[in-house]
Amino acid sequence: MSRIVYVNGEYLPEEDATVSVFDRGFLFADGVYEVTSVLGGKLIDFDGHARRLQRSLDELEMSNPLSEDEWLTIHRELVARNGIDEGLVYLQVTRGAADRDFAYPEEATPTVVLFTQSKPGLAESPVAKRGIRVISIPDIRWGRRDIKTVQLLYPSMGKMAAKKAGADDAWMIEDGQVTEGTSNNAYIVKGRTIVTRHLSNDILHGITRAAVLRFAREAQMEVEERAFTLDEAKAADEAFITSASTFVMPVVEIDGVALGDGVPGPVATRLREIYLEESRKVAV
Amino acid sequence: MSRIVYVNGEYLPEEDATVSVFDRGFLFADGVYEVTSVLGGKLIDFDGHARRLQRSLDELEMSNPLSEDEWLTIHRELVARNGIDEGLVYLQVTRGAADRDFAYPEEATPTVVLFTQSKPGLAESPVAKRGIRVISIPDIRWGRRDIKTVQLLYPSMGKMAAKKAGADDAWMIEDGQVTEGTSNNAYIVKGRTIVTRHLSNDILHGITRAAVLRFAREAQMEVEERAFTLDEAKAADEAFITSASTFVMPVVEIDGVALGDGVPGPVATRLREIYLEESRKVAV
Repeated sequence: MSRIVYVNGEYLPEEDATVSVFDRGFLFADGVYEVTSVLGGKLIDFDGHARRLQRSLDELEMSNPLSEDEWLTIHRELVARNGIDEGLVYLQVTRGAADRDFAYPEEATPTVVLFTQSKPGLAESPVAKRGIRVISIPDIRWGRRDIKTVQLLYPSMGKMAAKKAGADDAWMIEDGQVTEGTSNNAYIVKGRTIVTRHLSNDILHGITRAAVLRFAREAQMEVEERAFTLDEAKAADEAFITSASTFVMPVVEIDGVALGDGVPGPVATRLREIYLEESRKVAV
Repeated sequence: MSRIVYVNGEYLPEEDATVSVFDRGFLFADGVYEVTSVLGGKLIDFDGHARRLQRSLDELEMSNPLSEDEWLTIHRELVARNGIDEGLVYLQVTRGAADRDFAYPEEATPTVVLFTQSKPGLAESPVAKRGIRVISIPDIRWGRRDIKTVQLLYPSMGKMAAKKAGADDAWMIEDGQVTEGTSNNAYIVKGRTIVTRHLSNDILHGITRAAVLRFAREAQMEVEERAFTLDEAKAADEAFITSASTFVMPVVEIDGVALGDGVPGPVATRLREIYLEESRKVAV
């Protein structure tokens, strides 16, 4: 079945969903994106994603082509048209099409693309029950990882390096410290203390991260927002990642070193339950 | 007049030149490019660009969808169809379209896009006669600048920062040393010695750079391939940049500091003449 994709005001069969070869998203990676999960046909953390989109656009001096209500309408329309029960909605905004020039075009209409991916079993994930294995790779990305741009080649290369090593994902290391995963924030647990890198230009300001840390604090867990080393991670009791599409996902192995008993730990498991339960309650 | 653009085997009016929204060039900046100049309707340094394209593709484990002869045929066809006397041919190869996933698709057909830009007066540039002014900005790009990927957002931001500052371009600084310009290699001249950063993952391996250094050595000029600092650059006798579309372009001011007499220096001026003369001779 062909998906219905949204492109610049139109709902189109995916085969007809195209952008100009002059689109700056294609020529310069001059665009930003968001991914919002869908559970039970409803959007998880939609407000947070809409706010972060605005921030990314502001940082790149791009105007937001739609209001939050308009974004919500398109998200819901795509979920309905494609019959998404569990899955995600991907949105991308670029600076638009213009003849190729490094300088931003004086006049260009932002390109807006949204599509869905159906992911049955996203919540009751078998992967979450066994946990994932990660390898470490150097973090050689650009210096503004807080802007959610489509410059995703290196994370993509990292994902491939992990696959080749028989692992599920890669954690990126800068100055001996873990920044984040290829498309997720990284956490370790020591006793009842959760450690995750503090917000800065070095990592994405995860929407799921913010929610999970709030839930952790509400559950009286200790949270330390600071950089941690790869060695510290390998010696941790447990570890996990968070992202819009994996929620809270236990990490059971880093560079071949099993954490704790080599199975998902109690903190990650509990946080996943809380996150799914609380997020479903306020899903839109 | 609408240009004729090449997309995946077809010559199309630019209005009809599109790629799928699922193209990995659009979603992940998972693509590479080359720009070849055209003078007198002929291609400058075509072989060098074809070789570097192959290298970029190899580094990203992408297959080259066309032979060098096929690339040449398309370049010439576009030059002819669009009546380009002076200008350039832009080519881009991406890993192709596939449903969005950080992991490379198992099967995807590379996307091939080429288009021309007409630039009358490219050789007899009035800008080359006055020289350009550059500002310095931190180099926060990713660590594999030797691969000519379309992850060009930061160079684009740098170009805009330069424009806002009333300058023409930006030189990027890492650890106090100049890496390169936003879309060109950077050089300074002390006496008769030309200094330009050595090749590494830190800079693009310029095709024009290679030719210009060869011509400089043939003309008995001293060439030092090593990193130089911003302070050293500001105290230089002259400076210039090289790229496929600017050839050799004198730099007369860095961060508001005039170099020498504030006009294009003799070394840059002479190298531009030699480069244009020699390149025209072997243009295809």
